[in-house]
Amino acid sequence: MKPWADDDEAGRVGCGPLGPPLSEVQRPLRQLVFERVRATGASSRSAVAKDLGLSPATVGALVAELAVAGLLKEVETPRESGRGRPAVALAVRGSAHCVVGMKIGDRESTAVLADFAGNQTAAATLPRQVGPMRLDELVEVIADLFGRVATGRPVSWLAIGMPGFVDSTAGCVLWSSFLWERGEPLAAAVRERLGVPVSIDNDANLVALAELWFGAGRALSDFAVMTIEHGVGMGFVMNHRLYRGAQGLGMELGHTKVALDGALCRCGQRGCLEAYVADYALAREAVTALNWGHKDGAAQAVLLESLYDQAKAGNATARAIFRRAGRYLAVGLSNVINLFDPALIILSGERMRYDYLYAAEALAEMDSLTIQTGRPRPPIEVHARGDLLWARGAAALALSDLTDSLLSAP
Amino acid sequence: MKPWADDDEAGRVGCGPLGPPLSEVQRPLRQLVFERVRATGASSRSAVAKDLGLSPATVGALVAELAVAGLLKEVETPRESGRGRPAVALAVRGSAHCVVGMKIGDRESTAVLADFAGNQTAAATLPRQVGPMRLDELVEVIADLFGRVATGRPVSWLAIGMPGFVDSTAGCVLWSSFLWERGEPLAAAVRERLGVPVSIDNDANLVALAELWFGAGRALSDFAVMTIEHGVGMGFVMNHRLYRGAQGLGMELGHTKVALDGALCRCGQRGCLEAYVADYALAREAVTALNWGHKDGAAQAVLLESLYDQAKAGNATARAIFRRAGRYLAVGLSNVINLFDPALIILSGERMRYDYLYAAEALAEMDSLTIQTGRPRPPIEVHARGDLLWARGAAALALSDLTDSLLSAP
Repeated sequence: MKPWADDDEAGRVGCGPLGPPLSEVQRPLRQLVFERVRATGASSRSAVAKDLGLSPATVGALVAELAVAGLLKEVETPRESGRGRPAVALAVRGSAHCVVGMKIGDRESTAVLADFAGNQTAAATLPRQVGPMRLDELVEVIADLFGRVATGRPVSWLAIGMPGFVDSTAGCVLWSSFLWERGEPLAAAVRERLGVPVSIDNDANLVALAELWFGAGRALSDFAVMTIEHGVGMGFVMNHRLYRGAQGLGMELGHTKVALDGALCRCGQRGCLEAYVADYALAREAVTALNWGHKDGAAQAVLLESLYDQAKAGNATARAIFRRAGRYLAVGLSNVINLFDPALIILSGERMRYDYLYAAEALAEMDSLTIQTGRPRPPIEVHARGDLLWARGAAALALSDLTDSLLSAP
Repeated sequence: MKPWADDDEAGRVGCGPLGPPLSEVQRPLRQLVFERVRATGASSRSAVAKDLGLSPATVGALVAELAVAGLLKEVETPRESGRGRPAVALAVRGSAHCVVGMKIGDRESTAVLADFAGNQTAAATLPRQVGPMRLDELVEVIADLFGRVATGRPVSWLAIGMPGFVDSTAGCVLWSSFLWERGEPLAAAVRERLGVPVSIDNDANLVALAELWFGAGRALSDFAVMTIEHGVGMGFVMNHRLYRGAQGLGMELGHTKVALDGALCRCGQRGCLEAYVADYALAREAVTALNWGHKDGAAQAVLLESLYDQAKAGNATARAIFRRAGRYLAVGLSNVINLFDPALIILSGERMRYDYLYAAEALAEMDSLTIQTGRPRPPIEVHARGDLLWARGAAALALSDLTDSLLSAP
């Protein structure tokens, strides 16, 4: 048996100028360094090393690779003291690539164009016919919107978010209320139509990605995002990365059951959280309360606004509808806390304008449903942002997948 | 601005014989290598490198360090071809250390002694008085059991699992039905009494750890374990590691709400899953159904056995009690699937002997509550193992924390 110090393999470590080739396990470090630089805007090697708990030598090697690939550049920043030579910081080469992020929405679709540093350089929206479409129709809508936002510029990656069960890895929409058929290979169809690499994802994941890249994620490694719109979605960031589940189908908070044999959900099952909280759930109660009928999506929006106005004006039935939805939202939130113990919960979506949903009494209800450990519950932030945020999240996905693709190339 | 090739920091990579010192980020690699060797029993450097997607050079360097620390050894294994010199494999030095794992249970407590390779070398049990105790009383129970299993041998680490809200990082029991007071510093108290480093954890986490070390985790990176005993617990393994949450208080599946204003739970809240599924929930219905009274834990066990016998014999009320509990178990399982999308769910605990809980109709109910993606749902395995498994999980925690401590030392 050979003595350990002579070990052949051990002796081979670090012979080349940049050390051994980066392995599969080490590759995320390169990604981490790149993402750290992008997140901070401009950062010195030593600051990146400190932030990530890496040795300066490791960061130096990774940065050199990223620079050779044309992805990072050096910029001069003034010394904090204001004296001496300018310090050298790292920054992403924004001009290196251009990506498009797109959110297919219920009534309109939104797209943004972003540079490689994540800066938004253009945006466009397109009204959408409410209701399901054929795959080829959806591909044309996407191509139309793509043309409007890209206006002929070369695009390196396109990412698309939509509601439903989306297998991001396979690029396949398993089910969505926007498509007639199940299991549609949307990513491949769009790639073929536009000649651009395409990623797709569930839209709630994109909101979590947007927060990770441009919002709360700059300071936190673990947080949950709950979206309330035409459905109830959830995205979960763990250790600075999106958690997707074994088949990429996790985080269907809207279809967790909060009652056995409960209210009917659009998915056909009963007792789903969104059957108590989503816009269609409020709308069907509003029809009864306000003695209205509603025909299409536009009418439903008007109906909800009217219900909200009535509640504000003191209509007891309208208030009770929001109060009940708020109580069920409290159940959903407390279940997220009891299971995931996140550092922060972000409530996101247009519907968050209906502040009855997260009124003091709904939050008190949530506190009464959360396990009592003697510790403060995680903070809850309300971000009533529009579709642009979702599209920016899609751009983040495009940048992330583009970077992965660039950095895994030999 | 200096050209990249001359970059000072990049040039410093890999100068020493073993490359740069292992950083914080790289330290888990060393742990990964060690755990891979322990999991496989005996494995060659190249097999470990292949399994972990690491370069042979990196594995060689890490293995050399682990050998110098006395944690790994080389063993000769016969060539598969049966000819030539024996191959050299790596194995954990079992004699390097000795740990104790302990599960504090409702009616008895169990401990195992394990060597550094995870082999169980002794076991002991001690009956426990049902009901809450003072901290000093619990410490004496633990010391008594520790003495019976260690019998004077030097122990490097002790890990203890118990039900309740346990902050493993702080070594603090925030709440448990076994202790009168909240926020008890159990780990520090036991460490002071025994002079041994101590870790504590929620007992469901330990079952997940036991599966990770000795069961399903050898083949899978992501799975959920659901325990059904005096309560309903959950452990979740993600990327070969236990997920704990931001404050170490996640996975309280038993206290997620499956009904608003529902059945009363022992935690004082209403609608908790365990208020429909746990033994006390079945027992309180059995009291009504069988027209019994029950006074203490032992009587409750007899009551449950009687209820089960009645159900087997065709008693419609007894059957309906199990059927309802099974339906709520289905709600809990479907919520786990809808949220976590695990590769496997393991149902564990003594109560799993009551096969009415997971009868065909309960599983069919679960299928009807899980989102329909067109993909098969994750497999569900039933492991009706006893307290010994939980204690082995505690031993795994002890080994894990001991290894962390050894490998993070300078």
